[in-house]
Amino acid sequence: MAILVVGSVAFDSIETPHGKRAKILGGAATHFSLAASYFTDVRVIAVVGEDFLPEHEAVFTSRGIDTRGIEHAKGLSFHWTGAYEGTLAEAQTLGTDLNVFERFEPKIPEAYKDSEYLFLANIDPVLQARVRAQMTRVRMVCGDTMNYWIKDHAANLAKVLRELDVLLINDGEARMLSGETNPVRAAEKVIAMGPKSLVVKHGEYGATSFFGERSFAGVKGGTRPFRAPALPLAEVVDPTGAGDSFAGGFYGYLASQPELTPAVFRRAMFYGGVMGSFAVERFGTERLQGVTREEIEERFHLFREISHLDHTA
Amino acid sequence: MAILVVGSVAFDSIETPHGKRAKILGGAATHFSLAASYFTDVRVIAVVGEDFLPEHEAVFTSRGIDTRGIEHAKGLSFHWTGAYEGTLAEAQTLGTDLNVFERFEPKIPEAYKDSEYLFLANIDPVLQARVRAQMTRVRMVCGDTMNYWIKDHAANLAKVLRELDVLLINDGEARMLSGETNPVRAAEKVIAMGPKSLVVKHGEYGATSFFGERSFAGVKGGTRPFRAPALPLAEVVDPTGAGDSFAGGFYGYLASQPELTPAVFRRAMFYGGVMGSFAVERFGTERLQGVTREEIEERFHLFREISHLDHTA
Repeated sequence: MAILVVGSVAFDSIETPHGKRAKILGGAATHFSLAASYFTDVRVIAVVGEDFLPEHEAVFTSRGIDTRGIEHAKGLSFHWTGAYEGTLAEAQTLGTDLNVFERFEPKIPEAYKDSEYLFLANIDPVLQARVRAQMTRVRMVCGDTMNYWIKDHAANLAKVLRELDVLLINDGEARMLSGETNPVRAAEKVIAMGPKSLVVKHGEYGATSFFGERSFAGVKGGTRPFRAPALPLAEVVDPTGAGDSFAGGFYGYLASQPELTPAVFRRAMFYGGVMGSFAVERFGTERLQGVTREEIEERFHLFREISHLDHTA
Repeated sequence: MAILVVGSVAFDSIETPHGKRAKILGGAATHFSLAASYFTDVRVIAVVGEDFLPEHEAVFTSRGIDTRGIEHAKGLSFHWTGAYEGTLAEAQTLGTDLNVFERFEPKIPEAYKDSEYLFLANIDPVLQARVRAQMTRVRMVCGDTMNYWIKDHAANLAKVLRELDVLLINDGEARMLSGETNPVRAAEKVIAMGPKSLVVKHGEYGATSFFGERSFAGVKGGTRPFRAPALPLAEVVDPTGAGDSFAGGFYGYLASQPELTPAVFRRAMFYGGVMGSFAVERFGTERLQGVTREEIEERFHLFREISHLDHTA
């Protein structure tokens, strides 16, 4: 079933210990869409500038992603400049040029309105809420956010959180949002803010899901946390978009299944890790443009092998 | 089969956000022994001072731990003072009084010489090597170390590493020992220094095992890494000894099994996590003195449940 994603389609200038790239295709909605496209139909809502060329659009369309909701505006696309050092755990943001994104007003094409799954990528919670309000027939809403919105736009974010089935954030964001250093208490506080479940990404250590007391879809209230591993990788070329690729694999798999059960949720977390692990192998979207469904399944089995007691290697 | 452990039996003065304790029983060999005692016979080699009273010895003997190798010397026992803040990820060492430990010369009682499993807890690698050299009939050697020895006693440590079947260290120690920030390359470099396998502890994120190209016991060379989870805990009262308790659960389980296979190694990593998770629930050794075998099995199943795809909750 189709996922509608709203978020940034952008250009990234990135420096890592493995090299440097200038103005390559990036953005949360881009990484998310590519990862999710291996599992289900994806429709994008975003705004780009005049530097977004047919070759960039082809990255989406060649994966079957619906780009009718990508608005073309005068000016330049959103441009992020960042660098990674040492353990590559965290990006240093060197520049954020919002450009056309500054006046972004998401418009939902009529043909997108029957999307059953909505993903609110990391953008201004005011825009997230506006898109959410227009999508009255969705079955599930999943969202992301970041420190900037948590810190300075708490009231707006609070409204979005109440609408979410799943909130996907990282450890630092969970701590900041909850004001708690303990991960379990942080999760409890975050879930008390609204989302029915929470997936906390731990970077190279995988991810943990937490559930509240309310049942939703096929997941009973009080379901225990689940920990999905990450693959130990000898080479992380570029971590940019790893979290969005995780979200794409996770939500893409969920949307591809007839119903949401705890077992489906668990597998979705594995697929999230799988897509995140591919994403970081090359710069930008390079790896996720060309991975095959067979490679995805192979890696899924590898994730199982490295984390399951009963696997006979 | 019996494990011989050499290491510190000490007193700890600890402050955490949950409270304060002065001079409670601690030390790597203590935490290790208690955790391992639930799985197999344990024999301790250590030195204590006149402040080590019958009530302290009873903590060992009531768990069936052989204390004939604990030497009683004039003076005070080793005393560590530390504090934890925030995420409780790392201790701040406020004081290290070696006391009787300064002149520690491990002596191995005749009755210990048939021990098949040797654990070299975190002490001066010169002493680790000396004990190793005397234990000519052991089937397996597992060891720990810390930043201090890695940094300032590299040559002595190098000799010990060559004797190890398993080296158990944490992320920071693996990075420091290898000079590599990438965990896979760090593991390769560490294994190239001698140990046949490496277990890297990630604190609240579990642990990962790495294997070299040489087969040992029933583990084939080139066996893939394995990731064991940690339990998300709402309350960590005192992290002191968590790593040593992990080691005790891990090695205790290994030693209790007729042969070492990859499946046994995996389960051992889960038992390591289980014992570590109990250890932090109370101050010092309190929790590990009183856990039951039934609670251990229950928690093992919980670890399985939170990490396995096929678990039906």
